[in-house]
Amino acid sequence: MCTMPSRTEFELISRIRGRKPPNNSAVRLGIGDDCAILSTLPGNELTVTTDMLIEDVDFRKAWMAPAFLGWKSLAVSLSDIAAMGATPTACLLALALPPELTGRYFDQLIDGFLDACDFWAVPLAGGDISSSEKVCLTVTAFGTVPKGKALRRSGARPGDLVAVMGELGLSRRGLQILEEEQPAIAELASSEELEEWAQTPERARALRAHLLPRPLVAEAIWLGENGLAHSMIDVSDGLLADLQHILEESGVAAEIDADSLQPLQ
Amino acid sequence: MCTMPSRTEFELISRIRGRKPPNNSAVRLGIGDDCAILSTLPGNELTVTTDMLIEDVDFRKAWMAPAFLGWKSLAVSLSDIAAMGATPTACLLALALPPELTGRYFDQLIDGFLDACDFWAVPLAGGDISSSEKVCLTVTAFGTVPKGKALRRSGARPGDLVAVMGELGLSRRGLQILEEEQPAIAELASSEELEEWAQTPERARALRAHLLPRPLVAEAIWLGENGLAHSMIDVSDGLLADLQHILEESGVAAEIDADSLQPLQ
Repeated sequence: MCTMPSRTEFELISRIRGRKPPNNSAVRLGIGDDCAILSTLPGNELTVTTDMLIEDVDFRKAWMAPAFLGWKSLAVSLSDIAAMGATPTACLLALALPPELTGRYFDQLIDGFLDACDFWAVPLAGGDISSSEKVCLTVTAFGTVPKGKALRRSGARPGDLVAVMGELGLSRRGLQILEEEQPAIAELASSEELEEWAQTPERARALRAHLLPRPLVAEAIWLGENGLAHSMIDVSDGLLADLQHILEESGVAAEIDADSLQPLQ
Repeated sequence: MCTMPSRTEFELISRIRGRKPPNNSAVRLGIGDDCAILSTLPGNELTVTTDMLIEDVDFRKAWMAPAFLGWKSLAVSLSDIAAMGATPTACLLALALPPELTGRYFDQLIDGFLDACDFWAVPLAGGDISSSEKVCLTVTAFGTVPKGKALRRSGARPGDLVAVMGELGLSRRGLQILEEEQPAIAELASSEELEEWAQTPERARALRAHLLPRPLVAEAIWLGENGLAHSMIDVSDGLLADLQHILEESGVAAEIDADSLQPLQ
């Protein structure tokens, strides 16, 4: 069902298969059949999440280097896996892009995606490639967690402490910088160029949070394994909006000490 | 990460959650958390596939009623699950559409999708909703199969019979009718209207194959359970192209008796 004049779907898939995936025993059969096959360890359950990133809605090609887009598309899904206290095991990528971007742009996007796969040891087990006017990625990510141990939104209890990992608003600050200063994509095509263009460490941190996020996957798993959290959520809409989801699902209320929230430097 | 002026993301999710999903013990946690949680029966493996349908690439809004689009988007993914000899257990839907389609169009699309979920007893366990200029759906479907029993493309052996279920080219014939006659969407918005507009049973069959496909899920599972097939594939690019995938992966050759292929009536 694919229209792809420049490079064919099969050429693009070969490009992906040319890179050795990280090893993960959860993947019994990877790219190349009608389905991938995953196994779950006895006593474990599978967590799964799917997220779309769409050009001009979730990102602008003008600011977002394809390698960063590939990286970020996996990172945001792994953040959902980690928010359940689960360990990421595999992912799928459904990618649609205009025929004129199936060359260098595709290669850089896929390399960014596979760099993230390597970084978190999450093999790309399958997917779909299609054409479209605007770039669109749907990433489905899988995780594993001991039965009954996933940290649900409904798990919060009276007496729990509300705690945040990472810096609230940092990614938003990065987006603001990009919107205000509109850098040329060529100035921001690699991690090194990002540092240089940012000029100050604070600005670089904000830009990285937006363009090359590193969800705190190991930290979230550690919290779950050590029974240190009853409930977790991936903060994407802001502290109050996302805390509200936990409160509603758990049937509890929360008190936030506004002074404890430090504004970004 | 959602921009949705007309109905909010949360209103759309409520609309989906308003319909009771079919029961399936594989889904431990459905819509409403950072991830869905799935369990696999002991001794079983999970099969998973993801497919995109994109407006003006895979379908035209002018011919494809939203209810048919919803139905078809699940059907094509279940066809991949069935091609492994696996039993479908759950699905995820990532849906992007223009803000002006979040009313009636969204409702009909979701109802078509959930009708297919009911028909195949496959609960919608989660997903993502976003906005876009063109309608875009990514469906991820899950299945379960006894360990080592999935029918892979690599399983064909010398002496195997090449057999086809369904009628080759029927969906393509349906597409041709639509392209040539360009019916108004209002004439083709329900199964009954399709029958009426088609005029003859042959034309209705072709239109249904394209707009409201029913992959032979039970038949494929039966073939697998009874050890009657060594290898299977979902035919979407045509007999020769898709057979070629089996031959390459299995390291075998095939002989096709052209006279055995009956042209469509």
